[in-house]
Amino acid sequence: MTKGFVSLVGAGPGHPDLLTVQALDRLRAADLVLYDALVTPEVVALAERAQRFFVGKRAGRKSVRQETITRVMVRAARRGRRVVRLKCGDPYVLGRGGEEAMALRAAGVPFEVVQGLTTAVAVPALAGIPVTHRGLASGFVVVSGHDESSFRPILGSLDPGTLTVIVLMGLAHRGAVAACLIERGWPSETATAVVFAASTPRARTWVGTLGHLGTAPGATDANEPGTIVIGDVVDLHAVLAVGGDTPHRIETPRETRSAWPVAGVTKEQIGRL
Amino acid sequence: MTKGFVSLVGAGPGHPDLLTVQALDRLRAADLVLYDALVTPEVVALAERAQRFFVGKRAGRKSVRQETITRVMVRAARRGRRVVRLKCGDPYVLGRGGEEAMALRAAGVPFEVVQGLTTAVAVPALAGIPVTHRGLASGFVVVSGHDESSFRPILGSLDPGTLTVIVLMGLAHRGAVAACLIERGWPSETATAVVFAASTPRARTWVGTLGHLGTAPGATDANEPGTIVIGDVVDLHAVLAVGGDTPHRIETPRETRSAWPVAGVTKEQIGRL
Repeated sequence: MTKGFVSLVGAGPGHPDLLTVQALDRLRAADLVLYDALVTPEVVALAERAQRFFVGKRAGRKSVRQETITRVMVRAARRGRRVVRLKCGDPYVLGRGGEEAMALRAAGVPFEVVQGLTTAVAVPALAGIPVTHRGLASGFVVVSGHDESSFRPILGSLDPGTLTVIVLMGLAHRGAVAACLIERGWPSETATAVVFAASTPRARTWVGTLGHLGTAPGATDANEPGTIVIGDVVDLHAVLAVGGDTPHRIETPRETRSAWPVAGVTKEQIGRL
Repeated sequence: MTKGFVSLVGAGPGHPDLLTVQALDRLRAADLVLYDALVTPEVVALAERAQRFFVGKRAGRKSVRQETITRVMVRAARRGRRVVRLKCGDPYVLGRGGEEAMALRAAGVPFEVVQGLTTAVAVPALAGIPVTHRGLASGFVVVSGHDESSFRPILGSLDPGTLTVIVLMGLAHRGAVAACLIERGWPSETATAVVFAASTPRARTWVGTLGHLGTAPGATDANEPGTIVIGDVVDLHAVLAVGGDTPHRIETPRETRSAWPVAGVTKEQIGRL
């Protein structure tokens, strides 16, 4: 890789050990890193020899325009630099990775997509919630909660109870998310969690019901990510939220329902051995 | 980690560079590895100092029973061994990871879940298909195609065109998958892809329409994974399926539709720079 090149890299949920081997390699080799909000300082720091620029949205300030980001990437690559465009989670999951890739393609700049653990799956898992589980959910749906006009038609068409629902970037609209599903017939007792800052030392999980989601606590600051998980699988956290030797310990500061025994999961199931 | 311990590890789509740093670490330190079908030999080989046992389903043979797998893990951990239970993709996405974790919890054996890139997102991406893209899909749904009784109620309730649909383990039922969505009102012209053996040298993609999915080619052998992707984002492969310096080159051996220009993506969008 001597000529200029852009890698669109997914940073995963935040902990450096949760990067892929390929992502770590690209960060270490980078000359220039352009990183978004929500990418943790620990991950950015791995690009030791690179110039590093924050290009995300910061509370109360304008974000760098997409056109500017693209222009900087294209110019740097044309000058022979190895550019890493670093995004939280996976670049192709609600991360505008496809748009940036198309722009690079149009500009004739060689690029690649280096995937990351999507927060949609990784964040619930870090809180002890498998997004699928036999007998509880044989599938899941992931939507952006950023814009009510985009999530309303999707959530409003989901039959109750068939899927685990994961809403990314939806903290600000958590009341509307709950209302959509309840209107569609989802029981207000459906187990619901909000997972904050997963895989960081500030990781914590709120567990309650869909009916209480609107009054769940928000993030402590605007740069803290929160992931909403809705469905019976949420109750499994009571069994599966374990620390092990990993650094991703989860706290459950508040419960608005008794989490055990839970729908569909019996003592027998866990006691079978 | 001197005492016995079980790591439920996701192997990602198959290429070793797509493992997480944590997964690579656990493989290298393992004393015992129990691996499933579809995990590539290159990934298994990274556990250099471990005893390695295949416990998956092989065509024409019985698979090892889940109870047996659990018993082996529990016994080995109790004898102080570091056990890796290695699964394709992510352990918590249709991989029975939750069930094994619950069994370990019930047995009082310390364990952790080490996530992998889920094939649901990674496999389409390797074929140049972002599962979300502004203006085309602001969310996606992942279902198991293994069992018609589990995917039919889910797919039969999805409003046409609102989401990208990804079906894992659904090659055998690809005709029924298409029929479900078409009955629900999805246009038979909806762009559809089947991605085989992504991130391996045999990687290839079939691109066609939902109406043709039933007659799409199957896997060349029973151990080859195939992922079905349905929705407008499929058309982006025409622009985004690039090799870069990665080893994940994609071939498109057959097209049953003209892929460009595509619904919702204009020359302007790509030519904006």
